[in-house]
Amino acid sequence: MVCKNAFYAQSGGVSAVINASACGVLQTARQHSEEIGKVYAGRNGIIGALSEDLIDTSVESEAAIAALKHTPGAAFGSCRYKLGSLQEHRAQYERLIEVFRAHDIGFFFYNGGGDSQDTAYKVSQIGAGLAYPIVCVGIPKTVDNDLPITDCSPGFGSAAKYIATSLREAAFDLAAMSRTSTKVFVLEVMGRHAGWMTAACALAAEREGDAPHVLLLPEVAFNEGRFLAKVEEDLERYGHCVIAASEGVRGPDGEFLSASGVEDAFGHAQLGGVAPLITNLISAKLSCKCHWAVPDYLQRSARHIASETDVEQAYAVGRVAVEFAIAGRSAVMPAIRRLSDAPYRWDIIAAPLSEVANQEKLVPHDFIRADGFGITDAARRYLAPLIVGEAFPPFKNGLPDYVRLQNVAAPKKLAREFVA
Amino acid sequence: MVCKNAFYAQSGGVSAVINASACGVLQTARQHSEEIGKVYAGRNGIIGALSEDLIDTSVESEAAIAALKHTPGAAFGSCRYKLGSLQEHRAQYERLIEVFRAHDIGFFFYNGGGDSQDTAYKVSQIGAGLAYPIVCVGIPKTVDNDLPITDCSPGFGSAAKYIATSLREAAFDLAAMSRTSTKVFVLEVMGRHAGWMTAACALAAEREGDAPHVLLLPEVAFNEGRFLAKVEEDLERYGHCVIAASEGVRGPDGEFLSASGVEDAFGHAQLGGVAPLITNLISAKLSCKCHWAVPDYLQRSARHIASETDVEQAYAVGRVAVEFAIAGRSAVMPAIRRLSDAPYRWDIIAAPLSEVANQEKLVPHDFIRADGFGITDAARRYLAPLIVGEAFPPFKNGLPDYVRLQNVAAPKKLAREFVA
Repeated sequence: MVCKNAFYAQSGGVSAVINASACGVLQTARQHSEEIGKVYAGRNGIIGALSEDLIDTSVESEAAIAALKHTPGAAFGSCRYKLGSLQEHRAQYERLIEVFRAHDIGFFFYNGGGDSQDTAYKVSQIGAGLAYPIVCVGIPKTVDNDLPITDCSPGFGSAAKYIATSLREAAFDLAAMSRTSTKVFVLEVMGRHAGWMTAACALAAEREGDAPHVLLLPEVAFNEGRFLAKVEEDLERYGHCVIAASEGVRGPDGEFLSASGVEDAFGHAQLGGVAPLITNLISAKLSCKCHWAVPDYLQRSARHIASETDVEQAYAVGRVAVEFAIAGRSAVMPAIRRLSDAPYRWDIIAAPLSEVANQEKLVPHDFIRADGFGITDAARRYLAPLIVGEAFPPFKNGLPDYVRLQNVAAPKKLAREFVA
Repeated sequence: MVCKNAFYAQSGGVSAVINASACGVLQTARQHSEEIGKVYAGRNGIIGALSEDLIDTSVESEAAIAALKHTPGAAFGSCRYKLGSLQEHRAQYERLIEVFRAHDIGFFFYNGGGDSQDTAYKVSQIGAGLAYPIVCVGIPKTVDNDLPITDCSPGFGSAAKYIATSLREAAFDLAAMSRTSTKVFVLEVMGRHAGWMTAACALAAEREGDAPHVLLLPEVAFNEGRFLAKVEEDLERYGHCVIAASEGVRGPDGEFLSASGVEDAFGHAQLGGVAPLITNLISAKLSCKCHWAVPDYLQRSARHIASETDVEQAYAVGRVAVEFAIAGRSAVMPAIRRLSDAPYRWDIIAAPLSEVANQEKLVPHDFIRADGFGITDAARRYLAPLIVGEAFPPFKNGLPDYVRLQNVAAPKKLAREFVA
């Protein structure tokens, strides 16, 4: 086997553990120096490849690479940028080949969610389409947990642990205040189409009556009358009511309740503010004091309360991605396969990128309680092991001690600029 | 000394460590069974005393009491209820005496912020005013850190640690996304009048250019032009901008910015939300993508990331409150006195309740940077030790394992009901 350099990049919304996957890639690549030379990281995802803005990871110390395992965010910068089709945007792909050839890159690792796996899949087609031999491996990442085939997506377990912990803590607060003050608390949860994170809030409840009392999943159409009746019933029964509402809740017309009219770079509606909306509705109709919270980025970056299970899986998919690449397996993504719920056991298989790209795995019907406001035992069995275990980062001066890499640019070899 | 029973209650907004103070009170009282008989807790603060809804804490196990030290919320329920003056609301005070006498209560401990210390002070006047001998000790608590005399207020250090950690994590997220997506992140922080928690966000920054780039303190009038110029400058220099905004930011007219008058999609007046307001302003004027977060209750309940220093101080003021009471010191509050910044050393003194009640300690002028958008080195020296040390709760099934007490009501001895 000829030794080739590798390209690794991070894409899409970040997570508490995407850098743990980077750590898995870099440490494993360093252990295989006969097959993989340098690992170049793309600065800001695929844009780094297109603009020949490559970070030379070989200058980073072993300690800095190890510290990625406990550092949130995306150490090399991420992007929201989707490659067009090979047919219609041939110039982009020719540019990629130009950059890969100039830097002797034979391995391509792309770490992200559904859109990013689509990019990885398209790049994998260069080999056949443009006669440039490259081994492409996608690495799964998304707090939304909506990637298909893989049992769960790295990033989700930690976000789920954060949001369930936060909901439990806020519920203790609310229960203490409800006698004379606030009676309803609404927590807005990420997950535009898939309600996995909202469903995970239910893990905060241990026994009948525990919060959350109501889940508003994006998979269930919002019905104002039924919702208000449920809240009123819970207020009657428990004296307070905790609601976990997905940012992607939709009305019976299929429109996002929170549709702000703004679109993001992918042309998706930019959401925000379901919680204040729901809160105002309850205040007006049920005349009680409400509080709401929107943790937003906090929930996908909360490395301080990461799930150990999630960190291990994030590292493992990075490690196995390199092993797949060395074995010449292209156009695949390491996917987590569940072997048993309790004790929780899992291994990693190869999922074809063609089957992963642009697929969204929603919360299935049998995971949603008949009334739509909760989850079933099956869902709980699925979710429970994913948040298990603590993996606290080191602390310095009272705060998590996260690493910042040097991110030294590799010298450019091409004269031509390319505007992504 | 004659052995008397004690009354303990929790009041006002809760915190991550008010139960650590309860633990200090209960464990210390149990060690002094010759002076203190039973400790009755008021269910929902002073309301529990007025309505003779007393919780018999003697039925709780040692383990349950110990677990209070790592449990957020208010284990006996809190209240927002201010006693009127002794002159105008004599019936309330006569009722308190009736309940105290019926249950042989000679010690009164009230755990809360400024309003609650006012209540404690008023109850302490019963002795002279209504000839009922009772030893009254206030116990400080408030995430707002606005109590006078005490160097800091238990609850603040943990909330500060949570908010600075969250801001650092969100800033890592934003820095990774800013090349192609979100460029501004606004974090709304509690503290309606005092900007201590907003100031604490600055601890997240270690070096020039680190987030937060802008603080909006309630002590500094908001000036739209200067603010937008600062954000634009930071965007130019760093490519992104993180803003910590107090919920209590006011315009030059002294009005809260969040009293917006805006209506939502349901046609209801939009509640609070400085962060979305600031975000909309920046989006409109600087045309860049923004995200915002409002952690609300999460920041005052986040026991999972409590400051060890704060937990120790919260426990200590509970313990010392009992010691003061046994020594017959009434109408006082244990206050933390700082002996040195680094190494951080402190002890506890007695503050007269008459000087504590209804006073608000704002962030002083010399703690605020000249441009109003940051803090000074003096502020940093003050804040830094308060967030030091981790005191993680035990975890079970991946979530913090918080205790719920039995909260068994003591049998009522009075025939008359009293509606608080």
